[in-house]
Amino acid sequence: MMTQLEAARQGMVTGAMAAVACDEGVTGEEVRATVAMGRAVIPFNPAHTGCRPVGVGRLFRTKVNANLGRSPDRSDIGAERVKLRVALDAGADFVMDLSVGPDLAEVRQAMLDDSPVPLGTVPVYETVSRLEGAIPDMKPELLLAVIEQQARQGVDFMTLHAGLLRRHVSLAMKRKMGIVSRGGAIMAEWMHVHNQENPLFERWDEVLDILVRHDVTVSLGDGLRPGCLADASDAAQFGELDVLGDLVRRCRDRGVQVMVEGPGHVPFDQIQMNMERQQKVCDGAPFYVLGPVVCDVAPGYDHITSSIGATAATVYGASLLCYVTPAEHLGLPDADEVRQGLVAHRIAAHAGDVARGLPGARRADDAMADARMAFDWKRQFSLALDPQTAEARWRRTRDPGADEACGDDHCSMCGTAFCAVRTSKRIMAR
Amino acid sequence: MMTQLEAARQGMVTGAMAAVACDEGVTGEEVRATVAMGRAVIPFNPAHTGCRPVGVGRLFRTKVNANLGRSPDRSDIGAERVKLRVALDAGADFVMDLSVGPDLAEVRQAMLDDSPVPLGTVPVYETVSRLEGAIPDMKPELLLAVIEQQARQGVDFMTLHAGLLRRHVSLAMKRKMGIVSRGGAIMAEWMHVHNQENPLFERWDEVLDILVRHDVTVSLGDGLRPGCLADASDAAQFGELDVLGDLVRRCRDRGVQVMVEGPGHVPFDQIQMNMERQQKVCDGAPFYVLGPVVCDVAPGYDHITSSIGATAATVYGASLLCYVTPAEHLGLPDADEVRQGLVAHRIAAHAGDVARGLPGARRADDAMADARMAFDWKRQFSLALDPQTAEARWRRTRDPGADEACGDDHCSMCGTAFCAVRTSKRIMAR
Repeated sequence: MMTQLEAARQGMVTGAMAAVACDEGVTGEEVRATVAMGRAVIPFNPAHTGCRPVGVGRLFRTKVNANLGRSPDRSDIGAERVKLRVALDAGADFVMDLSVGPDLAEVRQAMLDDSPVPLGTVPVYETVSRLEGAIPDMKPELLLAVIEQQARQGVDFMTLHAGLLRRHVSLAMKRKMGIVSRGGAIMAEWMHVHNQENPLFERWDEVLDILVRHDVTVSLGDGLRPGCLADASDAAQFGELDVLGDLVRRCRDRGVQVMVEGPGHVPFDQIQMNMERQQKVCDGAPFYVLGPVVCDVAPGYDHITSSIGATAATVYGASLLCYVTPAEHLGLPDADEVRQGLVAHRIAAHAGDVARGLPGARRADDAMADARMAFDWKRQFSLALDPQTAEARWRRTRDPGADEACGDDHCSMCGTAFCAVRTSKRIMAR
Repeated sequence: MMTQLEAARQGMVTGAMAAVACDEGVTGEEVRATVAMGRAVIPFNPAHTGCRPVGVGRLFRTKVNANLGRSPDRSDIGAERVKLRVALDAGADFVMDLSVGPDLAEVRQAMLDDSPVPLGTVPVYETVSRLEGAIPDMKPELLLAVIEQQARQGVDFMTLHAGLLRRHVSLAMKRKMGIVSRGGAIMAEWMHVHNQENPLFERWDEVLDILVRHDVTVSLGDGLRPGCLADASDAAQFGELDVLGDLVRRCRDRGVQVMVEGPGHVPFDQIQMNMERQQKVCDGAPFYVLGPVVCDVAPGYDHITSSIGATAATVYGASLLCYVTPAEHLGLPDADEVRQGLVAHRIAAHAGDVARGLPGARRADDAMADARMAFDWKRQFSLALDPQTAEARWRRTRDPGADEACGDDHCSMCGTAFCAVRTSKRIMAR
């Protein structure tokens, strides 16, 4: 079997490429060409039965990922399946199972079975979960074995923190917040204790040998993403990024699809520079961003701080947004927070797509404007990113005197006498 | 008595300027100089007893306004006073009473009595509310009388739609959404029916004579702000803006403080251009923006679509943000929606201030990073824009096994084994 990248290079438009073309309103050949160049990926492990192919790249609609999974202290397989259902209903294009703890293969199988969208993991979480002792006890062989087992099981993409090297750890320790990536911190502690290089980097060719056999897409983890505004765009972050650029080339040379993860906490004025630098260093590999969160002082509202940064990121270079929920920095999200995080980042993706001029992106907005002008509430709700929330909110303060049959030609904001749309229509009619 | 602008021009640092200087961490002379140039305003009607002066301008922290007020269909004076309390608790720097209907002087007096922050109005709302008949029955004399009565009562700033002229109405009627400003639509219908010029424009000198006597700050209304992405940055919007630029000069010549209102629904990529154009046309008069909302398809979440645009607006030129609540496009907001709208726009103002390099703006973010590293949850909550929400959320999934006395050195997101901050600290300690 060939990976999507290998097939694209050989001039083949695969079934997955054809499906992505159909979803995105482009031709199969356009999909093939962008995949062949490494400017797009289609994470699509053939062992993940029931999965549909989804494209990630600047040619396509910007996608949103939902992080799910059991924490050591909280939740269980049942609750995570409920959250998966909520995330899918809210429009998640990708999901990641970040579960830690015992029986992870079983949890993951349930998620794979339930998920019609590509599923990603961070294999070092399972590796550490399977240790008897602490992080330094991790054997590189076990990490590679876990990667192989997960690839065989059907995982579509994997975050691998292979670019964080020994020389970066001391840079990161000078920061205000050190390392805030779980996987990055694990690799750093292992390197620091053993005084050895990152085993994923050392054995990268072996890793690629596994991944190419299952067409698992690499998501190069940014172990040194900044955890606060003060740490953004520093030597640690950009030192790792340069290594990620080299790893992108090695993935492509081996026929392995690759995308790159990015910051983190970044002040709004540094986002464009960060996106452009990543695009350049990584030769246009799809950029998968967490946030960026644009301020540190809004715990409880980080779906908003993140959607602000994610909109700018979408305009300037991102292709896949990892959601952040209102629970960020406070605890594991519940189902409603999963929904809120999803909607906030779908807003960012859509607003960014409109702003970067993606063909057809504004069609729904124009239709919404027409529906608002027509007081066609049902149509407004059907066009809304979250129809249920919009309709429920409207019903709650709907004018009790309004007549549904008459079309409710105003809302409780302005009533009939002060409604500007009604006034505009009188002017137009005159 | 002199207006703040007149005093500033005569070289006086008023008590209001000194208070603003203290709040903003600048000198009184710096405040005086920026007010004298018209680059900042201090809406501060001496008749509004108990009000504290608040500065609006690029030299200062970006401010947030909460729109309150009874709609024809909904709410009452009691409910609006509750919302005012919620808005103030959530950190509103300004409030507007947009009430319509009967007994508006009484409602406004209650708001003035309760509000220690500057209060604004849109006098044409009261004027139309006092009519027996429809909008075309409005007499310009009544509008001027209402302006005078409100000024005497203590209103600190007034939105006046004086720049929307007869020639703009036909431009606006070609749009997808026509006119979506309530006040703008009222002026447009009046002009259209009577085939006469905007009475506020025609009698602008008389208006200024009233305002200068009470030091009421003019907020030049953008009656033609776009109501959907498709209508943004069009001939109607920029035609009105040019008139607003002329009116800014007439206000300044008369010694009247003036700020300018702006869009509306604007795609993210057009925000910088809009902000820069307004600054240029209006010679740096403080820009008071509604949104901009960056997409049309998220009813129920427009506090988020607006905070995205408002962050960019703050970076590129705004000085005062009008909040948008989750109820926008659906109904009149309730108290909780007022709170959500406020917090979302305080995030935008703060993230924008950090990004534009306002001195000291990042101090709280840096302190938050330190508190996170120290697992000092109490300090984190005290630094949060909404401490109650952050703490309540944390408590809800706080590890039941954690010991408050030990400082809860992890959260339910990663537990102890996978906490990157804990891992970083082990590396640092080694």
